[in-house]
Amino acid sequence: MTDSDTDSENGDWRSTTIDAAQAEHNPKVAVVVARITQLRQSIDNIDGAAIALLAERFKATAQVGQLKAEAGFAPADYQREDYQIQRLHRIAEDAGLDPDIAEMYREFVVTETKKRHARIAAAGGGPQVLDVFA
Amino acid sequence: MTDSDTDSENGDWRSTTIDAAQAEHNPKVAVVVARITQLRQSIDNIDGAAIALLAERFKATAQVGQLKAEAGFAPADYQREDYQIQRLHRIAEDAGLDPDIAEMYREFVVTETKKRHARIAAAGGGPQVLDVFA
Repeated sequence: MTDSDTDSENGDWRSTTIDAAQAEHNPKVAVVVARITQLRQSIDNIDGAAIALLAERFKATAQVGQLKAEAGFAPADYQREDYQIQRLHRIAEDAGLDPDIAEMYREFVVTETKKRHARIAAAGGGPQVLDVFA
Repeated sequence: MTDSDTDSENGDWRSTTIDAAQAEHNPKVAVVVARITQLRQSIDNIDGAAIALLAERFKATAQVGQLKAEAGFAPADYQREDYQIQRLHRIAEDAGLDPDIAEMYREFVVTETKKRHARIAAAGGGPQVLDVFA
């Protein structure tokens, strides 16, 4: 199957869906479809685990934010941030992941934590509730 | 300890670091520091697990991209995307995570997958290597 075959069969190749209907026409394609289905199940399992971890992470950072606010600690801690950047870089390399993706993950969770605490502050929590890096 | 105490001690409160030096001055603060240290260890463990999962996810999507390219399948699959959005939304709710964060996670991994495959295509892999949603 080439791109032009896909074009002619489906009209718009961008909307191609990997399913049993495609596999029927070609045994070789059926093998690929089965393998993709298997990989997608693994991807879904990974995503489920990742969402569970993110849920736990935000629970933990919320507690850190609360504790910092109660004790009057500053929200940001750049020494902690440097530690996290270097540690995640090292872990990513060991895991066979591009360290840039690990840094994007860190920025994603930190940015969300910042936004959440900014909303708490806007609602009257005061700037000390702004736990930036946890 | 109040914000102004922190100001006078550190000059710039934004660079406050949670460490043993602060705990020495105040037993109550020592309790908070110990608890934050404990929570940070959990956050670091969560991040380590998340990086390992991301490493596995990108390995799996790279395989899906390769299989699609070999079989001539289209890179995008919007039926698959809809399924993932709804599934992650449901999992996030069950885990006690804001579904918006789950959607941001999905966008983060999908965007990165897109970028990676765009680079493969630019290097001569052809547009069929562009596995968008895996």
